[in-house]
Amino acid sequence: MTETAAAACEALLSHARETAALEQVAGRLGWDQETMMPRGAAHQRGEEMAAMEGVLHARRTDPRLGDWLDAADPQDAAGKAQLAKIRRGYERAQKVPAALAQEIARVTSVSQGIWAEARSRDDVAAFLPTLAEVVRLKREEGAALAAGGDLYDALLDDYEPGMTGAGIEGMFAALRPRLVSLREKILGSSRVVAPLEGLFTAETQLRLSRRLAAVFGYDFERGRMDLAVHPFCSGSGQDVRITTRVTESDPFNCFYSVIHETGHAAYEQGVDPDYLLTPIGGGVSMGVHESQSRICENQLGRSRAFTAWLHGQMRESFGEFGIAEAEHFYATVNRVAPGYIRTEADEVHYNLHIMLRFDLERALMRGDLAVGDLEAAWNDRFAADFGVKVDRPSNGVLQDVHWSIGLFGYFPTYSLGNLYAGCLHQALRRDLPDLDQDLQAGDLNRANDWLRDGLRRHGGLYAPAETIERACGFAPSAEPLLSYLENKYGGIYGF
Amino acid sequence: MTETAAAACEALLSHARETAALEQVAGRLGWDQETMMPRGAAHQRGEEMAAMEGVLHARRTDPRLGDWLDAADPQDAAGKAQLAKIRRGYERAQKVPAALAQEIARVTSVSQGIWAEARSRDDVAAFLPTLAEVVRLKREEGAALAAGGDLYDALLDDYEPGMTGAGIEGMFAALRPRLVSLREKILGSSRVVAPLEGLFTAETQLRLSRRLAAVFGYDFERGRMDLAVHPFCSGSGQDVRITTRVTESDPFNCFYSVIHETGHAAYEQGVDPDYLLTPIGGGVSMGVHESQSRICENQLGRSRAFTAWLHGQMRESFGEFGIAEAEHFYATVNRVAPGYIRTEADEVHYNLHIMLRFDLERALMRGDLAVGDLEAAWNDRFAADFGVKVDRPSNGVLQDVHWSIGLFGYFPTYSLGNLYAGCLHQALRRDLPDLDQDLQAGDLNRANDWLRDGLRRHGGLYAPAETIERACGFAPSAEPLLSYLENKYGGIYGF
Repeated sequence: MTETAAAACEALLSHARETAALEQVAGRLGWDQETMMPRGAAHQRGEEMAAMEGVLHARRTDPRLGDWLDAADPQDAAGKAQLAKIRRGYERAQKVPAALAQEIARVTSVSQGIWAEARSRDDVAAFLPTLAEVVRLKREEGAALAAGGDLYDALLDDYEPGMTGAGIEGMFAALRPRLVSLREKILGSSRVVAPLEGLFTAETQLRLSRRLAAVFGYDFERGRMDLAVHPFCSGSGQDVRITTRVTESDPFNCFYSVIHETGHAAYEQGVDPDYLLTPIGGGVSMGVHESQSRICENQLGRSRAFTAWLHGQMRESFGEFGIAEAEHFYATVNRVAPGYIRTEADEVHYNLHIMLRFDLERALMRGDLAVGDLEAAWNDRFAADFGVKVDRPSNGVLQDVHWSIGLFGYFPTYSLGNLYAGCLHQALRRDLPDLDQDLQAGDLNRANDWLRDGLRRHGGLYAPAETIERACGFAPSAEPLLSYLENKYGGIYGF
Repeated sequence: MTETAAAACEALLSHARETAALEQVAGRLGWDQETMMPRGAAHQRGEEMAAMEGVLHARRTDPRLGDWLDAADPQDAAGKAQLAKIRRGYERAQKVPAALAQEIARVTSVSQGIWAEARSRDDVAAFLPTLAEVVRLKREEGAALAAGGDLYDALLDDYEPGMTGAGIEGMFAALRPRLVSLREKILGSSRVVAPLEGLFTAETQLRLSRRLAAVFGYDFERGRMDLAVHPFCSGSGQDVRITTRVTESDPFNCFYSVIHETGHAAYEQGVDPDYLLTPIGGGVSMGVHESQSRICENQLGRSRAFTAWLHGQMRESFGEFGIAEAEHFYATVNRVAPGYIRTEADEVHYNLHIMLRFDLERALMRGDLAVGDLEAAWNDRFAADFGVKVDRPSNGVLQDVHWSIGLFGYFPTYSLGNLYAGCLHQALRRDLPDLDQDLQAGDLNRANDWLRDGLRRHGGLYAPAETIERACGFAPSAEPLLSYLENKYGGIYGF
């Protein structure tokens, strides 16, 4: 490498490190907004978010980046990956006008509060003008990014580099028939699994939740857990925070959302510390991120072996709560029922929720669906897919935060994550055939290590699908997830 | 105003608004560090603070500012004040090299943690190398700012525009003899006031503290209260947060630090909303800020009338706690005793604590005192002024956070605030002669309004001393504070 090339690499990395630090600051501002911010600060916060976005946009379009990118010639894999990420960000940022980027930051900061308020009052009309504005801005952004191509693909690529709407269609084509058939078998089964009943004090739920987070590898020295309306994970490196929510009648909601967010957090915390505040220092894509949360929550956390341990923990924490047998508890945890809320959905229905959102948001972005028609479209599709009529907007079109903050193209990465989690789980069981012994003891150390060593530590070193393939030793497909689901639920529902 | 001049004004204000928003973000990062940040995030946080400082420094030295400042010609008082603040910031920032500003941000972010750790272990040696580094950097900054003048004056001017070390010396020359004499009379008095005894549960203290904050005008819709090692107030406009700490054996510590921080917060929250995120949208100086916290804490909060109400509140909250008479309670709240800790000092000793720090930090900045000799100098001076030997560093040189984060020149503004509070109190009593009736009922509304209308709403519109003079109707001096103290303590200690 010439001296000029080395200097350009150094300049790029130093610039990127500062940008990464500022992105962490902006992200923590988002965390604060959801957990700590006083209600009356919404307007000012919008200005703050917009100002940060302006700073970040200016950095991402810094003309020096172009010169450095031309001159740099990194020699090792990490350097090449970092450079590729920087180039990608630079090219993306150049396409979006600064004024638009700032406007999106300002509007989506305020719109989140309007959504939360509308949701709490089940008032769709109060949210629609804001949503229309967000849709308009995101379409404008999509058009700027797509440069004549598909708007939705351009937005999706932000969350899952290299993925397209057509690719998602293909995935759903593979998943849908077997999921629908599995759903029908379960709902037609003579075995009835009753939901959990009783009240479980919030304080004890939170105590056990902290234990669960630690079991799944969450490092509280580099993170913290708070309450929020919507569970999420925020931050990278040394400061990765998770949130949860507590319903006294539904402890599984809290426990499994904590395990889920812990999966995300352990991914961020598990990235090679050498990559701290570099462009490859975080999770590589939303799909791969979701594979980490999902394998923790479902394939491991809802396994027969782990639920046996959790059953014991719950009896210790709450006393006898009406379920004496571990097998009965396992079925209860995995109960399948059509429900309104995506984040509470069982593994069989979950991807049907995503298919609905994918089709609707793609139609919104393509201009095939008007915001004014969104609620009706949601309700029709939900009735068709789930056989249940939406009873109120907070159980329907207002339930998710995503669209309010402009996350169009994000939803399908959840299903992609489920698919990846199926693959990783198959490979994990192959490599640790006696894993159930650990799970029964509430010991996730070997599983956590396997995930960290095979996947998490690489951060953004490899492309998303390559990251999964390297960890698994085979190319990802829908088959492992489908076989896993068919086996598991066949066992529980007896077919 | 010409079109060019108007455009320049608009450009300046828009630029300043974004800078103000980013300063709020950086400030909230500081709040987070003291209240929420996981322990293991210290290194990363240093990088984040440095990156924010880099952004702010670049904005403050933006060469376009110079052109706009040359062209702008604002017509109204607010516009002129905003322009003057921008000019001041621009000129200051140009003097300090960006690398130095970032280095200070990085070092002081990390050094705060090192100080806290050293303080908790009473280990001065563990802190000294860091302090030496901070002193070196601040002297470098002072030299850059002073441009041949006095280093300490240059740093002091950051916190109290227009004030000098000589001015502070003059103030202390007026205060010291009468304070020392008052101290001697009290300590020589035959009346003995015993300290409060008993344990007061933390939860109840915090509940009553929230009540006290509301009474003194804190708007919880635009703020929040959390726990921290060191009570502080952070933020401006719509998001002004306070912290406190709780000691079960010493509820006055919590109550009066909350009233104190509420004074700061109500100042920030009381600024004219038209000035939100402009250069005059916050408190005008640290001295004026401290006048707001001090008048709430002392002249009002520790008055005979208000403590009568607080006495009733405490009996309601904690039951009988050993003090049955309001007059006895009033004396207990105002008990004078030489103590180690500045923030817990009574009104008579408080300014002696500041004099000590002022002399030491001025010597450090001028190079007349080496960091290695600081502890001995502190201990000698403390013994001389307070008649007590420092028993351990956390009660001595390690007690304050200020030096660890580079706040040299800040301490004397506390005494200035006390002096200003004395003036404001005299004027307030003149305008509301029946104020004690309100205070006895725990009703601070008229006092809060008087402070807001006469002072707080102006933000940075007027210079610090002018702000006080306009609110009072007379020029500030030490006399009102000294007469107030002599009258009050003469009454309590009977001379």
